[in-house]
Amino acid sequence: MPVNLPLPQAENLKSVAGVELGWAEAGIRKANRKDVLVVRVAEGSTVAGVFTSNRFCAAPVQVCREHLAAGKGIRALVVNTGNANAGTGEPGLASARASCDALAAQLGIAAEQVLPFSTGVILEPLPVDRLVAGLPAAIANAKPDNWLAAAEAIMTTDTQPKAASRTVQIDGKTVTLSGISKGAGMIRPNMATMLGFIAMDAAVAQPVLQALVSYAADHSFNSITIDGDTSTNDSFVLIATGKSGAVVERAEGPAFEALRDAVTALAQELAQMIVRDGEGATKLMTIRVEGGKDVAECRQIAYAVAHSPLVKTAFYASDPNLGRILAAVGYAGVDDLDVGRVNLWLDDVWVARDGGRNPDYREEDGQRVMKQAEITVRIALGRGKAEATVWTCDLSHDYVSINADYRS
Amino acid sequence: MPVNLPLPQAENLKSVAGVELGWAEAGIRKANRKDVLVVRVAEGSTVAGVFTSNRFCAAPVQVCREHLAAGKGIRALVVNTGNANAGTGEPGLASARASCDALAAQLGIAAEQVLPFSTGVILEPLPVDRLVAGLPAAIANAKPDNWLAAAEAIMTTDTQPKAASRTVQIDGKTVTLSGISKGAGMIRPNMATMLGFIAMDAAVAQPVLQALVSYAADHSFNSITIDGDTSTNDSFVLIATGKSGAVVERAEGPAFEALRDAVTALAQELAQMIVRDGEGATKLMTIRVEGGKDVAECRQIAYAVAHSPLVKTAFYASDPNLGRILAAVGYAGVDDLDVGRVNLWLDDVWVARDGGRNPDYREEDGQRVMKQAEITVRIALGRGKAEATVWTCDLSHDYVSINADYRS
Repeated sequence: MPVNLPLPQAENLKSVAGVELGWAEAGIRKANRKDVLVVRVAEGSTVAGVFTSNRFCAAPVQVCREHLAAGKGIRALVVNTGNANAGTGEPGLASARASCDALAAQLGIAAEQVLPFSTGVILEPLPVDRLVAGLPAAIANAKPDNWLAAAEAIMTTDTQPKAASRTVQIDGKTVTLSGISKGAGMIRPNMATMLGFIAMDAAVAQPVLQALVSYAADHSFNSITIDGDTSTNDSFVLIATGKSGAVVERAEGPAFEALRDAVTALAQELAQMIVRDGEGATKLMTIRVEGGKDVAECRQIAYAVAHSPLVKTAFYASDPNLGRILAAVGYAGVDDLDVGRVNLWLDDVWVARDGGRNPDYREEDGQRVMKQAEITVRIALGRGKAEATVWTCDLSHDYVSINADYRS
Repeated sequence: MPVNLPLPQAENLKSVAGVELGWAEAGIRKANRKDVLVVRVAEGSTVAGVFTSNRFCAAPVQVCREHLAAGKGIRALVVNTGNANAGTGEPGLASARASCDALAAQLGIAAEQVLPFSTGVILEPLPVDRLVAGLPAAIANAKPDNWLAAAEAIMTTDTQPKAASRTVQIDGKTVTLSGISKGAGMIRPNMATMLGFIAMDAAVAQPVLQALVSYAADHSFNSITIDGDTSTNDSFVLIATGKSGAVVERAEGPAFEALRDAVTALAQELAQMIVRDGEGATKLMTIRVEGGKDVAECRQIAYAVAHSPLVKTAFYASDPNLGRILAAVGYAGVDDLDVGRVNLWLDDVWVARDGGRNPDYREEDGQRVMKQAEITVRIALGRGKAEATVWTCDLSHDYVSINADYRS
C-alpha cells in the first residue's frame, strides 16, 4: 500500500505538444504486460539528462551518454523493463545499440538520435530480439495523450504508475510540463533515479536545459532514498519541445527561475511518488537537517538517519525509540560535531534538547506523531546556516518479502 | 536461530588467574534476568580499551576514557544491560560516575580504578539506584569460573551468550585467554563492538597492550557489520593480569606476535559469534575483497556489499540474484574503479568475469552455494595487492520483527 499516493487519472495528465508516447507488450521477462515504451520527440527539441554514478553503469546508460554527446538532436527514447542490461559487458552494449538501430530505421532518423533505457534484473542478457519485435506496435500506438500508459509501461516492482503534470506562465505564454517516473527498490539515486522523464513545450537552449536538469535532480531524485542502493541504471531526462512559443535562452533571470521552479516541483512530486511507493513502505519520512556548516554535512547526516535499518524499523512499528536517530546522527561521519548543540524534533514535538532528552518531552507526544503516515524528522546541528532535506520510507516485513521473492 | 553457533559450555571456558566475575539481577529494565556484571581485576594488571567513534558516545564511554587516562590502574569493571545511558547529557554522566563511586567504595579502591559500561535503550535515564543496589550481590558471587554467567549477564537481543577461551605458549609459559562479547543489532563497530572483554594472564606493558587491543579490534570487531548502525556504546577491553609469569614488554618480536595472534583469533571468534547471532540472521557471509589499491578501498567495497539491503535479502532468499552485488561494488564510491577488471566468486563458483557475467556460469551452481548457511563472496578488483575481509549476515523478516518490537 503506497503512502498517500492516489492513482493518477489519465484526464489529469496533460499532453505536451511535440511529444508522442507508445507502448508494447514485448514479453521481455513476462507475457501480457506493457514492457516497452517509445517516446517520439519533435524535430528541433532539446534533450538533456543526468545518469547514475554507479561504476557498473548499465549498457544503455553508456549509450545515452554517447548519443547525447554526439549532438545530432534526440528524436526518440526507447525504454524496456524486465531486464536492466547491466553487468552484461560487450554483448550488452551491442544489444543497446541494436535497439537504437532498429528504432531509428523504423522512424527514419539516425541511431544517435535515439536514447535507450532499461530497468529490471542485473547480470542477465537482454532479449533484444523480443524488444525489437515489439517496436512496430509501440510506434503504431504512439500519441500525445498516452502519459498514463507510458507510466504503466515502465513499472517494475512499483505497485502503481507515477505521473504528474503542471503548467507555468513564462513571458505570458503557458508552458505545459508532464512527467513520469518509476522505481520502488534499489533507490538511492546519485545523479538521478531510474527512471524519470519530464517533457515540456518551452524552447530551452541546450546548456540551459542541462543546468535545469541538474538543479531539478539535486532537489528531487537525488534527495530520496529507499534502501541506500544506488542503481546501475538511474536516468533522469528532460525534454523541451519549444511548441508553446515560450523561449528560455539563459540560465538566469525570471523566466529561467520560473521554469526551474516548475521543473523542480514536478520532479519532487515524481521523486516523492517513488518513496511513497517504496518497497513495503507504510510511512513517508522527511528528514530535514539544518544549522549545518555546509549542505554536504547536512546531507551526510540526513542519509545516515534515512538509511539506518534501526530508525526505519522503529518508524514501521510506530515506536518512538528515538535514541536510534541520535545514534545515526553520531555515526554519520561529521567528526567535529558537538552533540551538546544537537536538537531533535518529530514534527512539532521537541524530543532532544542540547544533545540529551528534552526534560519536557513526553513519550505519548512522540507516540502520537509516530502513528502518522507522514512524519518530519527535524535535526538542528547548531553550527551553521546550511540545510538539506531527504525523503525516505520505513523498513517493513513487506520490503523483505518483496526483495526475497523478486526473481522467484 | 543463530548460524552454526553452539551454546558455550561452562567447562570449556577457562579461568584467567587474577580475574573474578560476579553478576546480579538488578531489575534495570526487566525483572528476573541477569543485568549487572562486575569484573574484579587483580592489582598490577594492565587494562586497555578501544571505544565507539559515534559522536553521541554514551556517558559510560566518556567515563571509561577519563579513567583509563588517569592511569591509576584499573581494578574493576561494572556493566549493565537494559539501558545504554546514551543521549542522556549531564545526568547520564553523573549516573555513570555514581556507579563507579559505589563500586569503588565497596571494593576499597578509587573511583578512577573502575570502568563502567552500559548497553540497551538510548535516550532514557539510567535507573542508577537499582544498578547500585545490585552491586553487593554481584560482588558476593564473584569468582574466577563465572565466564558463562558473565556472558549471560551482558546479553540484550542476543539469543545466546557468547564466550570462548584459548591458550598460547609464550616463552615456555602457558598463557590463558578468555573473552565474552554481546551484540546482535546496531552492529557496525567503528573502534570496537559493544561489548567485548578479553582477559589473559600474561603480563603486558600498557603501551604494548594498547597496540594489541587496536590490532585485534581492527581484525575482528571492526570488521563485522549486521545493520550498519554504529552503536553509541561500543567498547572492547583487554585485561592482562600477569599471573601466568609470561611477560610481553615490547610491541614486536616472537612473543608479541604469538600473543597478538592469539588475542586476534579469540577476538575474531567472539566477533563472528555476534554476526552468527545477528538479529534475524540465517546466514553468515564472509565478504572478501582483494586486488585493491589499499585496504581502505577494499573495506569500502566490502561494507557497501555487506550493508546492501538488496544483497542481504537475496541471501536470505537463497536467490543468486548476484547482479545486486555488482551494483553495490559499483556505487561503493571508488570513483576510478575499472569495472571491466572486476571478478566475482561465490565460494568456488566464478560468477562474473571481467565485469560481466562469466559465460561458463550456470545458475544452478550459484543456487547450490546460496543454499548454504555460510558463504564466501570473493571480489577481485584487479588494481593492486591490498585486501580486506568483512563478516556480515542476511536481512530476514525476523530482523524487522525484532527491531519493530524491541521496546514494546
